Amino acid sequence: MTERVYNFYPGPATLPLEVLEEAQKELLNFHNTGMSVLEISHRGKDYEAVHNETESLFKELLKAPDDYRVLFMGGGASTQFALVALNFLTQGTEADYIVTGSFAQKAQEEAARIGKANIAATTKDDNFNRLPEKGEIKLSKAPVYIHMTSNNTIYGTQWQEIPTFDGIPLIADVSSDILSRPFDVSKFGLIYAGAQKNLGPAGVTLVLISPDMLAKANKNLPVIFQYGTFAKNDSLYNTPPAFAIYLINLVLKWIKRNGGLDAMAKRNQEKAGYIYDAIDNSDGFYQGHARKECRSLMNVTFRLPNEELENAFVAEAKKANLIGIKGHRSVGGMRASIYNAMPMEGCKCLAELMKDFAKKNG
Amino acid sequence: MTERVYNFYPGPATLPLEVLEEAQKELLNFHNTGMSVLEISHRGKDYEAVHNETESLFKELLKAPDDYRVLFMGGGASTQFALVALNFLTQGTEADYIVTGSFAQKAQEEAARIGKANIAATTKDDNFNRLPEKGEIKLSKAPVYIHMTSNNTIYGTQWQEIPTFDGIPLIADVSSDILSRPFDVSKFGLIYAGAQKNLGPAGVTLVLISPDMLAKANKNLPVIFQYGTFAKNDSLYNTPPAFAIYLINLVLKWIKRNGGLDAMAKRNQEKAGYIYDAIDNSDGFYQGHARKECRSLMNVTFRLPNEELENAFVAEAKKANLIGIKGHRSVGGMRASIYNAMPMEGCKCLAELMKDFAKKNG
Repeated sequence: MTERVYNFYPGPATLPLEVLEEAQKELLNFHNTGMSVLEISHRGKDYEAVHNETESLFKELLKAPDDYRVLFMGGGASTQFALVALNFLTQGTEADYIVTGSFAQKAQEEAARIGKANIAATTKDDNFNRLPEKGEIKLSKAPVYIHMTSNNTIYGTQWQEIPTFDGIPLIADVSSDILSRPFDVSKFGLIYAGAQKNLGPAGVTLVLISPDMLAKANKNLPVIFQYGTFAKNDSLYNTPPAFAIYLINLVLKWIKRNGGLDAMAKRNQEKAGYIYDAIDNSDGFYQGHARKECRSLMNVTFRLPNEELENAFVAEAKKANLIGIKGHRSVGGMRASIYNAMPMEGCKCLAELMKDFAKKNG
Repeated sequence: MTERVYNFYPGPATLPLEVLEEAQKELLNFHNTGMSVLEISHRGKDYEAVHNETESLFKELLKAPDDYRVLFMGGGASTQFALVALNFLTQGTEADYIVTGSFAQKAQEEAARIGKANIAATTKDDNFNRLPEKGEIKLSKAPVYIHMTSNNTIYGTQWQEIPTFDGIPLIADVSSDILSRPFDVSKFGLIYAGAQKNLGPAGVTLVLISPDMLAKANKNLPVIFQYGTFAKNDSLYNTPPAFAIYLINLVLKWIKRNGGLDAMAKRNQEKAGYIYDAIDNSDGFYQGHARKECRSLMNVTFRLPNEELENAFVAEAKKANLIGIKGHRSVGGMRASIYNAMPMEGCKCLAELMKDFAKKNG
C-alpha cells in the first residue's frame, strides 16, 4: 500500500486527510443511525442537520450578510454558466463578461447562446497571463450584471483586489479560490463555486445570492433551473447530492478549526511563497506564466527551459510522490494546484525539488 | 455504536453492505494511487478506467444494443424532466405523457413549461393506485415521444409489461426500478435513472440513449443541456460526479457477482412476496394501496385500520430496527422500499412484524 502522495491536481483536488479519515470512520454508520450518510433520507432530521449546518458555516466563514441565501445545486461551474444567463440575462437586456481565462470565456460563450453577452475586457492576447486594468474594462450601457472569475485555474492568475462598478451587480465564478482568503461577498450579487477544488468532491455547487438578485431571477423557466426554486425549498426541491454536501460540512469545520479565512490566507501565502521563491531565485531557469502582480495563491504556473526538461521534472516529481503537476496544454509547463487542503509540507517538498533540479540541470 | 438497521427509505436508499465496506476500505488510497477516489483527476487514467467500466457494465447488465450510449449527468430525474423536453420537444412539435404518479406528473408539468406536453392518460382519479390500460391511452396526432415512468415510488405501482407504440420513441424515467429485473431497453429511445434508489448515491443520473434520439437531440441549446455534448465528450465535457460514479461501479459489480438481472428479479419477487403475503393473509387488517395486477416489487404501499395503529406500527418497526417505512403523505400508511440492496432478511423481518402486529391488534 502506497503512502498518501502530495496531489497537485487542479480539481478534483486533494482533501484534508482528517476529513477523509472522519468520513471513512463513519461511512457505514452515520451518527449512530445504523445507516451510511450515503443512504439516509434527505427528508430526515439527520441529514437536515448536516444540510442546515453547512449553510450556516459557509455564511459564517465568509461573513456573508444575513439576508444572503446559500443554495446547493447539482453540477459545477459549467452548469452555472447557463443558469446565470437564463435567470438574469432576459430578453432585451445585456450582460458584460470580463474574460480572464478559459472558463471565463466559456461562461461568456454559454451566455451568448442565451442572450446578449458582451466581452467587456479580455486578456486573451497575452495568453491570459494577467488581469485587465480597470481602465481596460469597457462596460456596455446598462448591463444587468458583470461576470468575472476570481481565480484562473489554468493560467494561475487571481484578482488581488475585486473591482466594483457602481450599482451594477457583480457575479463571480469563485470555484478555485473560495474560502482561501477573506472575501467581501457583500460586493457581489451572486457567487458560485463548484466544490471540487476548495470545498469537497465534484458534483455540487455552492451558490451565495443576495436578496436583490433573488427577487430579479427569472420565474419563467423550467422549475429546476430557477434560483428561486432552490431558495424557496432550502435546496430540497429535489434530492440534493447529500454525500458531497456532507463532505463540504466536514471541510468547513476543518477550516473553522484551523482559524478560518484569515488563517487560510496566511497559510496559503506562505505555501505559494515557497514555490514562487523557487521560481524567482532560479536565475531564469523557471519562468512563471502569470505576471507577478497577478499571481494566484491557488495555482502556480511555470515553465522550464524546454519540453525535455519538463518531462524529466514531472518524472522526478513523481518519484518524490508529488503528483499531478503537469500544466494544462494551453499553457504548457507545470502547474501546482495548492488549494487550502494542500499541506505546507507538500509545497516545501516541491520547492526543494525545484531547487535541486535547477542546480543539476541549469 | 448501533448495528446496521434495515433501511426502507425510498431514496436515498440502502446500499449493499459489501459495497460500502469496499468504499470504506479504499477511501484514503484508491487502487494504490496514494489518493482518495474523491481526489483523483477526472482526466487521469485511474478515474477513466472506472468511468469506462461503469458504462460497459451498465450496458452489459441491461443487454443494451451496442450503439446505445450511456451518459453520466448531474442532478436527478427532476433535471431530466427539463432536459428531455428541451432536447426533443422543439417548437411546433408535441409530446405525450402517461401520468401514473407524482413524478410522472412533474415530468409533464415541467415539459409543459417548455413546449406542448399532452397528458395521454392519467390515473390520478384513482389516486394512482393503478396503471392505465392500453385502451385508455389517447395519443395525439404525431407525438415526438411518449414519456412514462416505469415504477411509481410513492404509490407502489410498476408496469408489468411495457406498452409500445408503433414508430413513436418511448422515453422512460426508470429511477426506481432500474436493474431490478430484465428490461428490454431496445424498446426505448431514452431511459434515465437518478442513482439514489437502485444504483448508488444521490447526485448523478444514468441516461441510456439510442443513436436515433441522439441524432434528433436539439443542438441549439446551452452546451451543458445538450445530450450531444455528453455523448461527444464521453460525459467528460465538465467534471463528472466522480465519487457517485465510482459507487455505481461497485454496485454494478455487486449485481453481476450476484447473478445479474435474472437473479435480481427472482430475489425481488421473493422479497416483495413476503410483504404482499402478509398483506393478503391479514384478513383485511392491512390494505394494499396498489391494485394487485399493478403492484411494484420495489415499493410496497399499505394502510392499517387507522392512524393510531399506523403510528404504533412505525414505533414497533423502529424498535425492531426497521427504519423509514412511513408512507408518503399523499398515500398515508406505510411504504416499504425494497430495492435491490435490501436484504431478504429485512423483508422477512418486516413480514413477521406485520403478522405479529395484526395478531395483537386485529
